[in-house]
Amino acid sequence: MNNKSIVIKKAWAKDRRFELKDGAGSDAVHTTPIYAYAVCILETDSALEGSGLAFTLGQGNEIVCSAINHLVKHIEGKEINELMSDFGTVYKEMADDPNFRWLGPHKGIVQLALAAIVNACYDLWAKSTRLPLWKLLIDLSPEALVNTLDFSYYEEVLTKREAVSLLNDQKEGLEARQSIIHSGYPGYDTSIGWFNYDDQKISDNILKAMDNGFTAMKLKVGSKDPERDIRRAELVRKIAGDGATIMFDANQQWNLPQAISICEKLIELNPYWIEEPTHPDDVQAHVTIAKQVDVKLALGEHVPNKIMFKNFIQSGCLSFNQVDAVRVGGVSEFILISLLSRKYGIPVVPHVGDMGQIHQHLVLFNHITVGHPALLLEHIPHLQEYFKFPVQIKDAKYTTPQEPGMSSDLLD
Amino acid sequence: MNNKSIVIKKAWAKDRRFELKDGAGSDAVHTTPIYAYAVCILETDSALEGSGLAFTLGQGNEIVCSAINHLVKHIEGKEINELMSDFGTVYKEMADDPNFRWLGPHKGIVQLALAAIVNACYDLWAKSTRLPLWKLLIDLSPEALVNTLDFSYYEEVLTKREAVSLLNDQKEGLEARQSIIHSGYPGYDTSIGWFNYDDQKISDNILKAMDNGFTAMKLKVGSKDPERDIRRAELVRKIAGDGATIMFDANQQWNLPQAISICEKLIELNPYWIEEPTHPDDVQAHVTIAKQVDVKLALGEHVPNKIMFKNFIQSGCLSFNQVDAVRVGGVSEFILISLLSRKYGIPVVPHVGDMGQIHQHLVLFNHITVGHPALLLEHIPHLQEYFKFPVQIKDAKYTTPQEPGMSSDLLD
Repeated sequence: MNNKSIVIKKAWAKDRRFELKDGAGSDAVHTTPIYAYAVCILETDSALEGSGLAFTLGQGNEIVCSAINHLVKHIEGKEINELMSDFGTVYKEMADDPNFRWLGPHKGIVQLALAAIVNACYDLWAKSTRLPLWKLLIDLSPEALVNTLDFSYYEEVLTKREAVSLLNDQKEGLEARQSIIHSGYPGYDTSIGWFNYDDQKISDNILKAMDNGFTAMKLKVGSKDPERDIRRAELVRKIAGDGATIMFDANQQWNLPQAISICEKLIELNPYWIEEPTHPDDVQAHVTIAKQVDVKLALGEHVPNKIMFKNFIQSGCLSFNQVDAVRVGGVSEFILISLLSRKYGIPVVPHVGDMGQIHQHLVLFNHITVGHPALLLEHIPHLQEYFKFPVQIKDAKYTTPQEPGMSSDLLD
Repeated sequence: MNNKSIVIKKAWAKDRRFELKDGAGSDAVHTTPIYAYAVCILETDSALEGSGLAFTLGQGNEIVCSAINHLVKHIEGKEINELMSDFGTVYKEMADDPNFRWLGPHKGIVQLALAAIVNACYDLWAKSTRLPLWKLLIDLSPEALVNTLDFSYYEEVLTKREAVSLLNDQKEGLEARQSIIHSGYPGYDTSIGWFNYDDQKISDNILKAMDNGFTAMKLKVGSKDPERDIRRAELVRKIAGDGATIMFDANQQWNLPQAISICEKLIELNPYWIEEPTHPDDVQAHVTIAKQVDVKLALGEHVPNKIMFKNFIQSGCLSFNQVDAVRVGGVSEFILISLLSRKYGIPVVPHVGDMGQIHQHLVLFNHITVGHPALLLEHIPHLQEYFKFPVQIKDAKYTTPQEPGMSSDLLD
């Protein structure tokens, strides 16, 4: 590893927003999204610049930027390798910034701000070693890795020592799992059936996705008219065929009785999962759905922190963990949640607020180092022209990125 | 009721902060608080002005103000009586403001902003009827009252119809409960033992509190050194006497193993409750504490919304519900949570981020109309000089406020 000193001279936030076209990105709750990033930029005493993303739907993105500017004092002036050697401690200092934490704690805008800063630090760290993030992470010793994590409030479920041991246990089969670097991580097409798309467009998109090699794809449901959901879901199954892996995503739209009623109908179409069936804070409602309906539930994009994930994981209702590193407290909290999820045997299938740019690194790490199965990484093509190194998809698989950092630099 | 038309012409946010002196307000996690309000001001076409509070600890208060300014568009131009006749619908529109909700949903800064706006609406409504809020609320028909609430995601636990029925059931004994208006609502002294106070100051404060008629008081615990907690707790019990009602408040400081260990010791001092023993998102950890230790738990000041409260209430770990109308989505969400809590037989003992100004109204309503027992309302004297109509305490009881509105107007 290159240990050249790189000092963070100044850090600040950028507000970047991108219009979407023709109904792209629409779901049952967010019908006219604007994809946006609150970006934390780390200026250093070298030519390197760290860049960290938090994802929003546009409105209020400037407020996340204000919160970033409040928190960056914790990392300004720090040398990056030194900072990352005990990043768990600094993470906790930022998460528990005195008085500021009262605005959360550990949720909402202050947590998104934390995400952007934390991600910028990992990005700069990887760039400083001239490695892509996935390579930096899989090369770290278990001890160095867990030092970047904050285990507080995980004492009863996962201690630092237990995490090291879990990582050491994965050394068996590690070499075989590294083959994913060359074969590429499988993707699924999340964009065939946005909420505002009509039937014809969905049909066309499914055929195009299949032409491109995708066998897994997701449909937005959660209509006020359940018949519309059923009709569209049947359409997807019919055109994609019985062999296709299909998922339905309600984006929190249903209340509990509605969720049970419609999930009971949707399972006849054999979905791989049903996503965000109801309010993301409602662990108990998800437990009820999972008990009453024979369905696998996926969620995570609106679960704000490791504590809520712990409760979801412990509750037994979560079949697929969709933690997103640009929605929780960045790569650090993502990895901690991923470790706990591994302990409980729940696969991680990230939501990609980053359009997959960062998560293409994290799923490789999750598979190779943490021993998670290599299932599917969401693929969403709408912002590719804005990234410096956009993800490359070949035969429905992510081509392993080779550029240093976490591939989240945006073009100016 | 006076139905004179009052139109909200313009609404905006004010950032008000107040320094505390000599360790007042300090707790195990927030050692140097600044008490602050993000205030929503409603300017009308009359001389009346609505004023709504959300409480923070200073840092980032301006960010809450930005969020208020984003959301006020939903109520600008509205006539107040018309607005309040179906306020539940408008509440949901604000809580689910398209795309902005992605910054929560229903938690953190966007929820605090909602609180300030909602509270300003209830304040203006009460002023427009020339009634103190408690009187306005107890005079409302059950139907008019529930129309100010948003029952979404409560379908399986409390429907609007069930809430009306619950309120109608309380008519028995209502007259007797109204005697509280004259006798005054009992208070407890929350300021005898802030975290940074030394033993002498705590002793002096206890004696002063008892001189003033208080028989209930709270000590801050959660020290890194459990012996300090025990020593101070023993001091309070010794000086206040066996007949005193004492509570211990850890402000989220302990992890689960620590909480169990120290709560097992603290219960020997017969506390009325132990407050916020661990992370406020961790329902499961609270369930474990409540199962393993014979202790009554109180919490709520960091539970952001009705969904999380629902989960806490359903879980069986909550003995005292400390919902705070300046921390959840204002008076509207406070009342909804209070109704659910009543259904489950859990008393509401609010946290008073408002220094009791608003909650002195709400506990009267809770007792008289909702049928909650009249237990104790937190009393915290530190900001009295800043309010236009500061709470009046006589013989450790709140004197029922008579001025129109919710008593939360701040002096300029």
